[in-house]
Amino acid sequence: MTGLSHYAAYLENEISGIELSDEPHNLYDTLRYFLSLGGKRMRPILTLLSGEIFNIPKEECVHAALSIELFHNFSLIHDDIMDGAPVRRGKPTVHTKWNTNIAILSGDQLYIEAYHQLANYSDHRLALLLKSFNETAIEVCQGQQMDMDFESLETVTEEGYIEMIRLKTSVLLGCALEFGAILGNQDEETRRNLYEFGVSLGIAFQIQDDILDLYGDPAIFGKQVGGDILSNKKTLLFLKAMQTGDNRFNELVRMNADHQKVAHAKILFEELGARKATLDAMNGYYDQAMENLKQLEAKGLKTDALHAVAKFLITREL
Amino acid sequence: MTGLSHYAAYLENEISGIELSDEPHNLYDTLRYFLSLGGKRMRPILTLLSGEIFNIPKEECVHAALSIELFHNFSLIHDDIMDGAPVRRGKPTVHTKWNTNIAILSGDQLYIEAYHQLANYSDHRLALLLKSFNETAIEVCQGQQMDMDFESLETVTEEGYIEMIRLKTSVLLGCALEFGAILGNQDEETRRNLYEFGVSLGIAFQIQDDILDLYGDPAIFGKQVGGDILSNKKTLLFLKAMQTGDNRFNELVRMNADHQKVAHAKILFEELGARKATLDAMNGYYDQAMENLKQLEAKGLKTDALHAVAKFLITREL
Repeated sequence: MTGLSHYAAYLENEISGIELSDEPHNLYDTLRYFLSLGGKRMRPILTLLSGEIFNIPKEECVHAALSIELFHNFSLIHDDIMDGAPVRRGKPTVHTKWNTNIAILSGDQLYIEAYHQLANYSDHRLALLLKSFNETAIEVCQGQQMDMDFESLETVTEEGYIEMIRLKTSVLLGCALEFGAILGNQDEETRRNLYEFGVSLGIAFQIQDDILDLYGDPAIFGKQVGGDILSNKKTLLFLKAMQTGDNRFNELVRMNADHQKVAHAKILFEELGARKATLDAMNGYYDQAMENLKQLEAKGLKTDALHAVAKFLITREL
Repeated sequence: MTGLSHYAAYLENEISGIELSDEPHNLYDTLRYFLSLGGKRMRPILTLLSGEIFNIPKEECVHAALSIELFHNFSLIHDDIMDGAPVRRGKPTVHTKWNTNIAILSGDQLYIEAYHQLANYSDHRLALLLKSFNETAIEVCQGQQMDMDFESLETVTEEGYIEMIRLKTSVLLGCALEFGAILGNQDEETRRNLYEFGVSLGIAFQIQDDILDLYGDPAIFGKQVGGDILSNKKTLLFLKAMQTGDNRFNELVRMNADHQKVAHAKILFEELGARKATLDAMNGYYDQAMENLKQLEAKGLKTDALHAVAKFLITREL
């Protein structure tokens, strides 16, 4: 198994080597800026790891991996506009540094570049890659719309929330893994197992993010703690607390958005058992992901790297 | 040759039959709304006409044709945001009727649907279609960025302007025609001739649009006359007048944006020869398009329908 950091370094190099035009510079300066902001590059790493299972060299998987990463970056640029987010990875977002029009258009451009990477596969695998990519991309947009719709809803069901994070963030991890299996000419069952592993892991990761937003160490978590609570965001943690019907929850929601509210939420959600229930939900999805790996192992496939990724992404005891 | 109106009706029916999800309804209501606004459907008609030359039935060409039309509609939704346009085809634009966030996301979605149509071709033609589509899409974005950049420039060269309209509007017509040749398994020269025919025709059409904006009959033209002049837009007509260096042009630019300015521009641009020079430029591109048809005819291909389209789109004596 090739180490994650080795793949990350390889991908960073490939990303900086993507050929982009020079003109119009307003368009391409933004793309270079945004792509250089970094990130864990987890999605394209998943494609390389998945391909490795079927002995497909990284040089053959890299275009599919890059298409996933470019799509991810496109969605971040547009989401940042829609969310009015000023900062991404500690740097100004594109619409803040330039303007909204340039951010819309550079997102569009990045999106095309994603498909441009896929066009490197001109054999029978292209149709399968394209189909998987399109279906995933449509779902990601649906998830973003659901997320925006949720903001103006009085309440959201737990099922609705899980479906939203499945669409908005998890299916892309599934697609990244399925790509490796498509490139490796695997049957539909193997492709499906890898896809489902990615989706379940993605849901678990997002739920973990909800918990860390309140309970994470800001030095490690890398974000301001309590942002979700300050905006009464309907995360799973929030919904679990709401489901208790406890009046203290309603009082918390009405509190002013300051550090006292965050401190109070930490204690209250613990007392109401919301933290524990959310952690259990996360571990449930993690277990589902492990089930998919077992099915792959039953076919004689080596899944060490995927186990390592799961452990790297998810801390089961929070 | 199948009539243009027959193809237009066929496409209208196919467009309204595109399967879209129902949820989230905010996303799909916008798409149905925008796609129902109509338009000439000229781009997808070109694909069907081009396919007809090689005896490819419309039922086989239609997915490629729809991908072009969906892409075109995506670009209109996003361009309308960037241009702050309140009205499109006599109806409120998406960002006006809903909001900017929904317009960004529904544009993104339409774009994916365009690629979704392409995925209907799973044979060897897919890679060629995808490559042509990607290259064109990248150029369309570049053209839109150039157009936005031009607004804040003091002056623009004629070459710069032609390059902008080539990228922003004409290459998509070229791609629509090339698609028919790809589906018909034609060699690169034939594909190139059809593509170039579309590009030259598209440039001629855009130049005609510049002339009609000032000199068109509003009842026929369907837009308010003089919009370009009121905003001092750097169209070819404007640039041709500017190139004369005549002081009356500079005075016109400084005039208040009202009907007197439009009336004055009509007379002045005629006197300065700008109208004639712009018309000559348009006819030059029209002639180039005819050259491409001659080369296709030399190969024994039937081009009646393309001649008819060119005559339908361009009035040589304005």
